[in-house]
Amino acid sequence: MSSNEFIFAVEQPWEKVGEGMYRQILGHDDKMMMVRVKFDKGGIGAVHEHFHSQTSYVVSGQFELQIADEKKVLKKGDAFYIPPHTLHGAVCLEAGELIDVFSPTREDFFKK
Amino acid sequence: MSSNEFIFAVEQPWEKVGEGMYRQILGHDDKMMMVRVKFDKGGIGAVHEHFHSQTSYVVSGQFELQIADEKKVLKKGDAFYIPPHTLHGAVCLEAGELIDVFSPTREDFFKK
Repeated sequence: MSSNEFIFAVEQPWEKVGEGMYRQILGHDDKMMMVRVKFDKGGIGAVHEHFHSQTSYVVSGQFELQIADEKKVLKKGDAFYIPPHTLHGAVCLEAGELIDVFSPTREDFFKK
Repeated sequence: MSSNEFIFAVEQPWEKVGEGMYRQILGHDDKMMMVRVKFDKGGIGAVHEHFHSQTSYVVSGQFELQIADEKKVLKKGDAFYIPPHTLHGAVCLEAGELIDVFSPTREDFFKK
């Protein structure tokens, strides 16, 4: 079960996944999944954990990232890595976008 | 062998990986690796293949992407997915950046 090879932004649906937080699923197969997450200023990715590894890129905006017990402010061009089963969360300080990638794929994102 | 959890753009080295093509390694562990690739206009990612799955995001610019026998033009917000062992290449039509993610990790990127 993998995505199309060419993925056009205008054809991908957006899903509201939290207050001021919207997700678009991009390229994926069973081993990994890329998603684009748009945040309004003040949008909160609540602290949570999952068995997947995650790595993310800050495309735009500014975010306060919490990973385990540490908090840092990241902006355009910065990135982060979340080991499996590590608590993490984000608060959007300036509207922007993250590219989140998970391994293995987030099967839960396909279930409503 | 995984990356730091917080990754600041200004601290990550750039490597020239082709004519008009520069790479910065971002978050990674054994299961996946994220890299940022900056292209000058006219930069060419020569057609090649690898056993890793790849999925990429167009952060900026415009690229003609070839995947197997198909070519399409992708721009900011578009994305693509390359199955393992599938020939692919890119020509940069307008200077910009890609976020490339591989699974499993690209151990070859650590060897000179």
